[in-house]
Amino acid sequence: MRTVPELIACKRDGGALTAAEIQWIIRAYTDNALPDYQMSALAMAVFFRGMSEEEMVALTLAMRDSGSVVDLSHVPGRKVDKHSTGGVGDKVSIALAPWVAACGVRVPMVSGRGLGHTGGTLDKLEAIPGFSVNTTTERFIELVATVGTGMIGQTKDVAPADKRLYALRDVTATVESVPLIVASILSKKLAEGIDALVLDVKVGRGAFMKDLDSARVLANALVRTAKGAGKDCVALLTRMDAPLGRTVGNALETAEAFAILHQRAPSDLTECTVELAIEMLVLGHAARTRDEAREKLQRALDDGSALATARRMVQEQGGDPRVVDDPSLLPATKQRHAIRAARDGSITSIDALEVGLAGVALGAGRTKSDDVVDPAVGFVFERTVGDSVRAGDVIAWVHSDDEARASHAAQRVGAAVIVGETRVEPSALVIERVE
Amino acid sequence: MRTVPELIACKRDGGALTAAEIQWIIRAYTDNALPDYQMSALAMAVFFRGMSEEEMVALTLAMRDSGSVVDLSHVPGRKVDKHSTGGVGDKVSIALAPWVAACGVRVPMVSGRGLGHTGGTLDKLEAIPGFSVNTTTERFIELVATVGTGMIGQTKDVAPADKRLYALRDVTATVESVPLIVASILSKKLAEGIDALVLDVKVGRGAFMKDLDSARVLANALVRTAKGAGKDCVALLTRMDAPLGRTVGNALETAEAFAILHQRAPSDLTECTVELAIEMLVLGHAARTRDEAREKLQRALDDGSALATARRMVQEQGGDPRVVDDPSLLPATKQRHAIRAARDGSITSIDALEVGLAGVALGAGRTKSDDVVDPAVGFVFERTVGDSVRAGDVIAWVHSDDEARASHAAQRVGAAVIVGETRVEPSALVIERVE
Repeated sequence: MRTVPELIACKRDGGALTAAEIQWIIRAYTDNALPDYQMSALAMAVFFRGMSEEEMVALTLAMRDSGSVVDLSHVPGRKVDKHSTGGVGDKVSIALAPWVAACGVRVPMVSGRGLGHTGGTLDKLEAIPGFSVNTTTERFIELVATVGTGMIGQTKDVAPADKRLYALRDVTATVESVPLIVASILSKKLAEGIDALVLDVKVGRGAFMKDLDSARVLANALVRTAKGAGKDCVALLTRMDAPLGRTVGNALETAEAFAILHQRAPSDLTECTVELAIEMLVLGHAARTRDEAREKLQRALDDGSALATARRMVQEQGGDPRVVDDPSLLPATKQRHAIRAARDGSITSIDALEVGLAGVALGAGRTKSDDVVDPAVGFVFERTVGDSVRAGDVIAWVHSDDEARASHAAQRVGAAVIVGETRVEPSALVIERVE
Repeated sequence: MRTVPELIACKRDGGALTAAEIQWIIRAYTDNALPDYQMSALAMAVFFRGMSEEEMVALTLAMRDSGSVVDLSHVPGRKVDKHSTGGVGDKVSIALAPWVAACGVRVPMVSGRGLGHTGGTLDKLEAIPGFSVNTTTERFIELVATVGTGMIGQTKDVAPADKRLYALRDVTATVESVPLIVASILSKKLAEGIDALVLDVKVGRGAFMKDLDSARVLANALVRTAKGAGKDCVALLTRMDAPLGRTVGNALETAEAFAILHQRAPSDLTECTVELAIEMLVLGHAARTRDEAREKLQRALDDGSALATARRMVQEQGGDPRVVDDPSLLPATKQRHAIRAARDGSITSIDALEVGLAGVALGAGRTKSDDVVDPAVGFVFERTVGDSVRAGDVIAWVHSDDEARASHAAQRVGAAVIVGETRVEPSALVIERVE
């Protein structure tokens, strides 16, 4: 067995670590036998040198096995989850999980909270009065077995090595490393006990990956590593230049998510959800072809089974199921403030990053992990990219009862919406598919 | 002011840190405000991205200023020191310091101990009965002012940031980084209060730098950084494939060092010492030209002033000055064991690294910093590279009273001496000069 400095030097010089060495490193790190200063030097060496597919698989499995893994083997049927790399206005999961579950695929979904400019599914779910994202593993298994889906937060004993390593990477400039991102995402997802995973890798201004090339690299690494770990996996690269859908903010987004199941959501949001759902149905063996999956999904909307599953999911997790049909039951501000077009023209872009950051400043998100979010605040866009506007038209509403913050947010979001001379056709949401 | 992760990311992405940022980092690290895990990530980023000359100067000065700096401004004359990157059999300093001092240059010399396969000047000096390398700064200044030279160990308050960073680099695979090596060497040398510095950058099997290209890079970085910090500086690249001189081991090397001043030392050792001394005299303004320096050095040997300064130095530091003329007063083993040639031929190489490691195993050096060295043990070579031998001829002697260790060392050193068919001309010791 090589010493720790020898292992770091090996990676530093472009060599590969064995699966046994990676397992040993992660176990020693979890047990506090390997100090942070050696782990951060190794992480920086990985940043520069990358990792082979074998190393990424070993790191993912070692991090998964640093904690407990949900055993869903006694629940019949395929278990498939979806993971998004994070965007602004991305409320897909809340509709996707019950919709796909209604089609016969088990969806054990462990989600995160918002941090930085991107929102988190847990915060959106908690906008529903009574809804609890904290539960025991036994209850989670029961939800997946009976409702077909459970949507919960990560428990403390899931991939503790990832929690510690992520906190270390955050303060040592080693976040932006593909192998470390891959292992962080997949270790937690694999701990859910899934058979397959669909990935939504966001690309653009409002995404972690700003350009198509780096998003492709990440998507490929994720898919290859998941497959190397024995899981079916497909990734969609989707656009995240403008916010997804028309709302940003927790309760506003939850309402818009349920609107998907009522077939009255904006087309980009619906497209994103449907494309991911199709992949889940195919990987979940609930459809043999994409066409069959699309038909089955449409049927679940038409016959009300998707909405019924959504209501049941909310109820079983302690929430008021009436919110699925009546968004007025969700928390709301008393005031809303108009953001108006300054000139005639056509909206050519909406900067998702700026909108996301304005949302955080308004109280919809967090800059620190212990910040408390306000479920009611946010933005509703009346117009989007490609729409014509006349000076004075309302482009969006700021939902907030705090005049000062609302005014600041209105200014920032107003500046993030560009009105030009020439009409721009909105681009297709799904850029490409990696499998 | 950028945050620490931003500073690490800047270096990681190939950017440069400002002098103020580097000062802040080193001060925060010394004050325990910047944790080891951020420093090791930064060190690894520096390993990959390097540092500009300005950054190296700032790092060197910041590390120097993390502790106390000797003030020699009240001692008249130029103060010049020599630093070697370390080799096997390198006892140059012990003759060089009094010799150059006898020529009118002040030589404030702070040296280190042996670690790994290379020896240390302090261990060699301590082979002299009574000699003390530990003294106060005031006494050190007095020695430089009166004797012309003082040879001491590093005090605790010299460059504490370097001590801590070096220990961290050792366990995080970030030792082999030119900017970090440069700052480590120069911060301690600049803390001596010198005006100029001559560097002996060793190249070859027995050196830290194994090949000429990397030694050149290091020498250039050292010279440019020293000059950037306002000090005159010249580096010589010298060969370290075979041990320097004919002895390895503390008392044996001290005796051989004094033999230089008696004009009866091996030619390679004398050449190395003279070439470094010439540079010191020129940088010390004791000679205008190299020829003048060479003449002045020869005069100091012929008129006995170099030997007189050596005796005075030994005496003033508590040692028995008679050792300068009578090596039999130094510690010695009772036994010596012959290493004989196995065949007729000519010595084509002697592996300095293997000889150094055999010396450590024999007790002449250290594998851990708290190992105790035996001053008497070591090797004396009767023959060197280029010499003809007949089977059965004594090539070298192992000095040791421990039969088992002696036998092991004899075997190892015997294997390190290669006897071939064709005679090899020994290469010139000085490869090139960097200024």
